[in-house]
Amino acid sequence: MTYYDKLHVEGEFEEVIGKTTDALSDEGFGILSDIDVSNAFEKKLGIEDYPEYRILGACNPPLAKQGLDTERDLGVLLPCNVVIYETDDSVVVSAVDPEAMLSVVDNPEMEDIASDVRTRFDRVLETLADK
Amino acid sequence: MTYYDKLHVEGEFEEVIGKTTDALSDEGFGILSDIDVSNAFEKKLGIEDYPEYRILGACNPPLAKQGLDTERDLGVLLPCNVVIYETDDSVVVSAVDPEAMLSVVDNPEMEDIASDVRTRFDRVLETLADK
Repeated sequence: MTYYDKLHVEGEFEEVIGKTTDALSDEGFGILSDIDVSNAFEKKLGIEDYPEYRILGACNPPLAKQGLDTERDLGVLLPCNVVIYETDDSVVVSAVDPEAMLSVVDNPEMEDIASDVRTRFDRVLETLADK
Repeated sequence: MTYYDKLHVEGEFEEVIGKTTDALSDEGFGILSDIDVSNAFEKKLGIEDYPEYRILGACNPPLAKQGLDTERDLGVLLPCNVVIYETDDSVVVSAVDPEAMLSVVDNPEMEDIASDVRTRFDRVLETLADK
């Protein structure tokens, strides 16, 4: 079992961020957090050449509420992240597998929610693969 | 196995946020994301009376870098969250159990990192319990 699904996407880094944000929006996910890891490593660790690495925290509000109604502490695992990073020759979009991540929650009611998020993330990656 | 550790903390909501942020800082964690869930639910779902619920994304830069050097896609599970929320009669601080969360990563090198984060989070909760 892996805990993510990823694909290589053509285009410039910021352009891929935009495409990914749009594809997530089409599936009902807003971006609630946007962490610039390379910037954080430059500021905190003095590393100037760390490859671009961004963590987008994606939240579908109705599904998030359903999850929090089921498990009050679920927020420690939210939002569901999609990361976008540079490699030597491409840009990678990697989405958490919600079914893997939520497998640590011992609550059968979470399975349907995880499955719903997973299906939406699958469509996001398919959309990006088609572009 | 639970996927979090939590405790009830005395004090006003914002005051507990401040104490938690300070205790995390003492263990080398900066806050890279701060999600106001109740505000998001008000804006996106029109719910006006959702209890205060904040998700703080805590990052210890050296440990995060070590994790990302080990597993390039680990960012889908980062940062490690500490949530703070209101109940009817108290404020709860709930920290993700990094060992539970990172158990989905099938990589023995991750165990030491998870254990280190876990030990630090344990001390954060102990500090808050003593106040």
